Amino acid sequence: MKYLAEYLEGERVVGFCLVKSKEAGVASNQSEYLNLELGDRSGSIMAKLWDVSPEIKDAIAVKGIVKIDATVQSYRGKKQLVIQRIRPASTSDEVEMESLIPISPVPVDELWEKLQKTVDGLQSKILQAIIREALADEEIHGRLRQFPAGVRMHHNYYHGLLEHIVSLLTAAERLLPLYPQVDRDVLYATCIMHDIGKLYELSDPIAPDYTTPGQLIGHLVMGVEIVSGICRKLDIPLGDAEVLHLKHCILSHHGEVENGWGSAVSGKTPTAVLFHYLDQIDSKMNALGQTLADAGEEEWAYAGVLRRKVWRGY
Amino acid sequence: MKYLAEYLEGERVVGFCLVKSKEAGVASNQSEYLNLELGDRSGSIMAKLWDVSPEIKDAIAVKGIVKIDATVQSYRGKKQLVIQRIRPASTSDEVEMESLIPISPVPVDELWEKLQKTVDGLQSKILQAIIREALADEEIHGRLRQFPAGVRMHHNYYHGLLEHIVSLLTAAERLLPLYPQVDRDVLYATCIMHDIGKLYELSDPIAPDYTTPGQLIGHLVMGVEIVSGICRKLDIPLGDAEVLHLKHCILSHHGEVENGWGSAVSGKTPTAVLFHYLDQIDSKMNALGQTLADAGEEEWAYAGVLRRKVWRGY
Amino acid sequence: MKYLAEYLEGERVVGFCLVKSKEAGVASNQSEYLNLELGDRSGSIMAKLWDVSPEIKDAIAVKGIVKIDATVQSYRGKKQLVIQRIRPASTSDEVEMESLIPISPVPVDELWEKLQKTVDGLQSKILQAIIREALADEEIHGRLRQFPAGVRMHHNYYHGLLEHIVSLLTAAERLLPLYPQVDRDVLYATCIMHDIGKLYELSDPIAPDYTTPGQLIGHLVMGVEIVSGICRKLDIPLGDAEVLHLKHCILSHHGEVENGWGSAVSGKTPTAVLFHYLDQIDSKMNALGQTLADAGEEEWAYAGVLRRKVWRGY
Amino acid sequence: MKYLAEYLEGERVVGFCLVKSKEAGVASNQSEYLNLELGDRSGSIMAKLWDVSPEIKDAIAVKGIVKIDATVQSYRGKKQLVIQRIRPASTSDEVEMESLIPISPVPVDELWEKLQKTVDGLQSKILQAIIREALADEEIHGRLRQFPAGVRMHHNYYHGLLEHIVSLLTAAERLLPLYPQVDRDVLYATCIMHDIGKLYELSDPIAPDYTTPGQLIGHLVMGVEIVSGICRKLDIPLGDAEVLHLKHCILSHHGEVENGWGSAVSGKTPTAVLFHYLDQIDSKMNALGQTLADAGEEEWAYAGVLRRKVWRGY
Amino acid sequence: MKYLAEYLEGERVVGFCLVKSKEAGVASNQSEYLNLELGDRSGSIMAKLWDVSPEIKDAIAVKGIVKIDATVQSYRGKKQLVIQRIRPASTSDEVEMESLIPISPVPVDELWEKLQKTVDGLQSKILQAIIREALADEEIHGRLRQFPAGVRMHHNYYHGLLEHIVSLLTAAERLLPLYPQVDRDVLYATCIMHDIGKLYELSDPIAPDYTTPGQLIGHLVMGVEIVSGICRKLDIPLGDAEVLHLKHCILSHHGEVENGWGSAVSGKTPTAVLFHYLDQIDSKMNALGQTLADAGEEEWAYAGVLRRKVWRGY
Amino acid sequence: MKYLAEYLEGERVVGFCLVKSKEAGVASNQSEYLNLELGDRSGSIMAKLWDVSPEIKDAIAVKGIVKIDATVQSYRGKKQLVIQRIRPASTSDEVEMESLIPISPVPVDELWEKLQKTVDGLQSKILQAIIREALADEEIHGRLRQFPAGVRMHHNYYHGLLEHIVSLLTAAERLLPLYPQVDRDVLYATCIMHDIGKLYELSDPIAPDYTTPGQLIGHLVMGVEIVSGICRKLDIPLGDAEVLHLKHCILSHHGEVENGWGSAVSGKTPTAVLFHYLDQIDSKMNALGQTLADAGEEEWAYAGVLRRKVWRGY
Repeated sequence: MKYLAEYLEGERVVGFCLVKSKEAGVASNQSEYLNLELGDRSGSIMAKLWDVSPEIKDAIAVKGIVKIDATVQSYRGKKQLVIQRIRPASTSDEVEMESLIPISPVPVDELWEKLQKTVDGLQSKILQAIIREALADEEIHGRLRQFPAGVRMHHNYYHGLLEHIVSLLTAAERLLPLYPQVDRDVLYATCIMHDIGKLYELSDPIAPDYTTPGQLIGHLVMGVEIVSGICRKLDIPLGDAEVLHLKHCILSHHGEVENGWGSAVSGKTPTAVLFHYLDQIDSKMNALGQTLADAGEEEWAYAGVLRRKVWRGY
Repeated sequence: MKYLAEYLEGERVVGFCLVKSKEAGVASNQSEYLNLELGDRSGSIMAKLWDVSPEIKDAIAVKGIVKIDATVQSYRGKKQLVIQRIRPASTSDEVEMESLIPISPVPVDELWEKLQKTVDGLQSKILQAIIREALADEEIHGRLRQFPAGVRMHHNYYHGLLEHIVSLLTAAERLLPLYPQVDRDVLYATCIMHDIGKLYELSDPIAPDYTTPGQLIGHLVMGVEIVSGICRKLDIPLGDAEVLHLKHCILSHHGEVENGWGSAVSGKTPTAVLFHYLDQIDSKMNALGQTLADAGEEEWAYAGVLRRKVWRGY
Repeated sequence: MKYLAEYLEGERVVGFCLVKSKEAGVASNQSEYLNLELGDRSGSIMAKLWDVSPEIKDAIAVKGIVKIDATVQSYRGKKQLVIQRIRPASTSDEVEMESLIPISPVPVDELWEKLQKTVDGLQSKILQAIIREALADEEIHGRLRQFPAGVRMHHNYYHGLLEHIVSLLTAAERLLPLYPQVDRDVLYATCIMHDIGKLYELSDPIAPDYTTPGQLIGHLVMGVEIVSGICRKLDIPLGDAEVLHLKHCILSHHGEVENGWGSAVSGKTPTAVLFHYLDQIDSKMNALGQTLADAGEEEWAYAGVLRRKVWRGY
Repeated sequence: MKYLAEYLEGERVVGFCLVKSKEAGVASNQSEYLNLELGDRSGSIMAKLWDVSPEIKDAIAVKGIVKIDATVQSYRGKKQLVIQRIRPASTSDEVEMESLIPISPVPVDELWEKLQKTVDGLQSKILQAIIREALADEEIHGRLRQFPAGVRMHHNYYHGLLEHIVSLLTAAERLLPLYPQVDRDVLYATCIMHDIGKLYELSDPIAPDYTTPGQLIGHLVMGVEIVSGICRKLDIPLGDAEVLHLKHCILSHHGEVENGWGSAVSGKTPTAVLFHYLDQIDSKMNALGQTLADAGEEEWAYAGVLRRKVWRGY
Repeated sequence: MKYLAEYLEGERVVGFCLVKSKEAGVASNQSEYLNLELGDRSGSIMAKLWDVSPEIKDAIAVKGIVKIDATVQSYRGKKQLVIQRIRPASTSDEVEMESLIPISPVPVDELWEKLQKTVDGLQSKILQAIIREALADEEIHGRLRQFPAGVRMHHNYYHGLLEHIVSLLTAAERLLPLYPQVDRDVLYATCIMHDIGKLYELSDPIAPDYTTPGQLIGHLVMGVEIVSGICRKLDIPLGDAEVLHLKHCILSHHGEVENGWGSAVSGKTPTAVLFHYLDQIDSKMNALGQTLADAGEEEWAYAGVLRRKVWRGY
Repeated sequence: MKYLAEYLEGERVVGFCLVKSKEAGVASNQSEYLNLELGDRSGSIMAKLWDVSPEIKDAIAVKGIVKIDATVQSYRGKKQLVIQRIRPASTSDEVEMESLIPISPVPVDELWEKLQKTVDGLQSKILQAIIREALADEEIHGRLRQFPAGVRMHHNYYHGLLEHIVSLLTAAERLLPLYPQVDRDVLYATCIMHDIGKLYELSDPIAPDYTTPGQLIGHLVMGVEIVSGICRKLDIPLGDAEVLHLKHCILSHHGEVENGWGSAVSGKTPTAVLFHYLDQIDSKMNALGQTLADAGEEEWAYAGVLRRKVWRGY
């Protein structure tokens, strides 16, 4: 199967795509057209559909799947599609979602197994119980196997959050022997739970928007509330030192309050300070890796995550 | 009864005080002395106790009450006490704590009544239930009638937090008719609950320190957790719009995240934005009022809350 | 009468509008067209006039009134007009300016009366004299009954500044009993005079631009100069404490100098500090109220004044 | 005559000094002592007066002149005086103020002449008239020949402001040929008038404090008000372009508003932008020159104006 | 010869231009077109070439010279060219580069002579030797006679850097007598060498881009490395005080590190501090001069270098 | 052997210490005394020497070694020494420097071996040659085995820099497998060379001050100059991509320029970005580890590196 990013100018594309955005316009000849953003797991492309009928206009839905017959053209230096034919996909088309959105390169089951192994190895029975309870929650379980770690910046693809968690766990495991002043179990628990609030801050794994609670509360405090909810359910005292420490690490993982990056409190333990930097490393490395991969042979490429151009190296 | 602040240089002081801090030293003649900070409701004063015996040194405890016989002297332009005799107070002395620490000028029962009346007048049954449950909690009830609103900056005296809440409620009530875009009940609920976390962020109402949970979680998130805990107990859904709104107002009441003043999220409703400014007004007016009152006849006085001098204005 | 904002896609519009901006272009067929921004009191809309003759092109003037016959179309998701016929309005058309620009919902005479009543109630004869002199100035009088409080952010409509002043006076009156450390008369005088410089910082009430003196001096200092000019005229000593206090409140009403928001000096009295927050409240509440009203049924809407999205509440 | 800074440890000092500050204390033997800061034109030194009588304590006044008989000692690495005898100076002592406070190295008449010559050479009759009127004012005239340019930072000595003005005029004259986009007369007028408000922001030239109007209005706006007052007196229209330009340069001479350094408006002409940098250069060069001169042979010295150490540079 | 900026709407243009950028597109009739940015020494203009053949599309190269036959039209309020005929220039066309790009108004030889004279007048034999060696380097010599001082902000034209250097030398020479605390020779050497790294930070003088070393190292450190390289070659000790001072001035010339403007170290000598402000003055005056010259008769014009509008003065 | 930190109040101390600072004073009885800061590897303590003779005063030198006979007293809550007898140490005393200053807990030879092994394993022959040449330099070799990584903040003890380097190499080695977008050899080379300039920025390993070149150039650029000097010596082209990359990582290791933390350029490669965070982690973990170790049993301790209190964990 050939993906959108692989087609060259002039080629014909026949296949299924996801509709990411839709905008109607009126051409100078008074006929209507649609500007669509279509995507599959290789990325997104703009598409033009001229002389659109009212029926088709209504039938094409954002976050829906369509089948297209189109040609690749160049417009202002970028590839775009000009669509000849389009129709919504039906269930009989048996399109797999995983072919339509970008997805983590690591299989979800492999990630999940690594996560489970870490949880099994926790020495703190309290932290272990909290995390097991979280992962056993049907909704959390389901979302954690699907959600990205963010809308744009890093690990922004199917089960990207799980990949980010496992990557952090691996980094934490490797650095822990160097820094005995860090609390191993709290660090692991923070890797797993720091972004758990994102499962409710974002709407869905396909074309995620921010939810109303997500915008009003934010994923840091949402994560802390999930932890506290579980503690209440399991009769774990909220004043337990390890629980306090985990909640502190979640609340401070965006760095110092004074920087205005969104922490509710500044990190005040070696564990919280270390985690903030690990999270920065893992998210920035992922974002820069994507930026350079997308840039093909270019020596320099613009990296949104740093708001400047980055260098391939040589 | 005459308070510490009223004694003049050269006068003799005999009476009860609270020990706020204690520091031992060795004089050039090798004898030991104590530097004490003593206080009553009129404020604090430094005191010197020369040639202190080990027994007395041990018997005098920080946050404890002592009876002194001392003389007021001037040292580097400030009054200080030189103590001739000192002993810890015993229960038979029947000293009232309220004579020993600064206290709100408004009687606690009057404040509490006003608070209750506002709660009774809430139209939202959900917000009313949450606040009634909070105020019915024995610990919250007790602390709210005693705690200051802060260690240093504003309403930093016995039941100062309650005075701050009632003052905010009054201000809110008066401005609401001007701004119909504001949610009345959520605004009232925020006035009452925004600093409720301080009852656990601070150690006690006499000589408050920050607690460990207070430093790790902060009173904004602590307040949100109290609200959520009550919702769970009362089976109020956490996704209820009014509950979300109240929690949002608590989390955002320190202003915009980008300013780095400690909000976990920036205010995103008219109610949240209004409350932030009301809280600024009430705390700054209280602090500046104290600064100018303490400055006596001085035209200008240094106001710590603004980090600059303020003008009496006449 | 039906306003621009009320027309739906496909409807025909015949009526008078104000020309807010005009831009000429050349179409691919080499004929000229105009892009116009047309407005009435319900807001603005973009309009296209194809094949425009040189005569019409010249006759249509920015800030002028035109009569149009046009159709509503959708372009890139927004409504726009395609104009079939257009001509400048003549005096015989008897168009009322108030139907053409957004206007305060409160009648100007009602606002003026409230303002006068406050002035009459001032106990300070000096402040009363200054303000009476200002309001008696023909130019100030005329402009204050017409000017908006700003170009874009808040109260940006006909006699919006007067509405803002009266709203501030009401808020001040309601909060004053809570804060006796505030100087009542100076606070009222600041409400009235704080933005008086805007009457000269802006060019006109219809389509206001910044004037050259406005950009070079700014409305804070311009306001202070108006006060000082009146004092000289009335032989009020410039060193009078109330005059100094009023000028201080005007100069500091954008908040602390260190924040870089344009105050010439940081607020150094309770009155100045309170007024800054009242002004923030009144301008932000007005702006957020407009944002949410314009957003119709949308749960979230982008508020330029906060540079983020705001929530309707429920 | 030998100045305070020239005495070495162990030497006896007999002579006149200015009392800059006074603080009373009680020694361990219960006798009173005074800590004085004494100064002459060479600088300041701390002095101790043991066993002070109430009469002497009252007779010694801050900003007064005293005659002392004292010995230089070293205390914590710094020289201090131990006073054996002290009395207030009487008029019969005929002490010249200029021997008692630091003074500009350039004679005041030489500076004044240079200033007058520049004013005479102005081509703009309006700017010339404004400045002549200002310099003809008896109070401004008198103060300008005495006041420092600041309390601490730069040109902080007798007629330091006049020296700063003349130094700026010289620098401006020399750079003008390079930058024809700058308005010569406005630049000269700004050099002369930019800090004219300091003559009222500061209390006196001997031991200057900030005045109440100085703290409430600030010297930028005070300078603009002086200019406007003169214009009114001379019937010069306030809207005159050169007057606007001069006022703009005064209001913007602390740099960009966003930096929070106290400008009321950001510089918006080449002249205003150039003047800001010239003022920075002249004040910083003066301050660094003093820092290095005071540091004697030290390779590095702490410069308060930069908040870091500076290098002599040899 | 008539330059691009001089042509009016409707006129025909026949002549040579430099291709600054090129972008291909597909028109609604499916034919290809080119959007070109064409320039000569009077500035740049957008140009449209419809129905372009593949041969022409390939033959037109960015940074190449073309001969065009075109018409000036107005598009969205700006002039643009519609090209009828176009071909690449051949060597037989004998086009002079200096007619094609903006160029300093001062002849290069005049600038060079002034530079040489300053170098000859240096009293420091070490600084003189370093600069002579630099200017004798064939590559530096060649580039310094061609490179702009920057891509966009100031002196952004042919041999603009040399003009900037000579202008700084003149300003330095004129201010030096006022500030004896400044090291004359180090100041002159800094004027000459402060931006020498730009000769390698930028790719070429015609259409400069940032080079890879330029982006990775920056012109400040590149300049220091050039100085150190010459010292090693000439056996000048790297610890020489004048060399250290020169390098310090280069590294600190973007102002204080804390401001985040790119200095590697904050200025710590009077010379370094003075140079920073001189550089600011010379670059800002040049940029504002250009802004106002380009603005023709407009009273206000947007100045990118200040990110705000500037005023012509009157 | 017993170290200073181990003595209790009242105990007698006889032994050798390092003199860290010295300050003379005059007591109220007119006799001279010395305030000394004395230290050994366990830390520092203030000491008082009353009635000091001029001979002893001169004989005691900062950074010199003395033998003392003293008693531990408590002064303002801190231990201090009162010295009965003191003399400078002579060579016959055979005091080992390592007993007198704090020292890394890891033996220097073990660290050196690990460093050598990493260098031997570099695949890049160019980077390997540069580092081998650096380590073979007698001065660098000697200093690297002795110098701290800083004066105060982290690894501030004997061969602390070497410990920091080896710790970074270990962390880098462990994280590299996770981030293939990072250049292994450049990362290792940066770990080794990033602070190499500190060997010249600081004066000596015993009581390090900042050198004049250190303050003028800073250790980032000094490090880059060392690399470039070696390249010139070894005929490695300065434009080599790996050399550029190493220099970029050194220059950017203090984070983004905009933050004002001292980088000469912002990190623009995955390797540079990763290294910045690794350096933050290693320095902060070391500093927090020391803070908590020094705090003994205290739950909370003030950490200078974070400018706030940190929590032990539980």
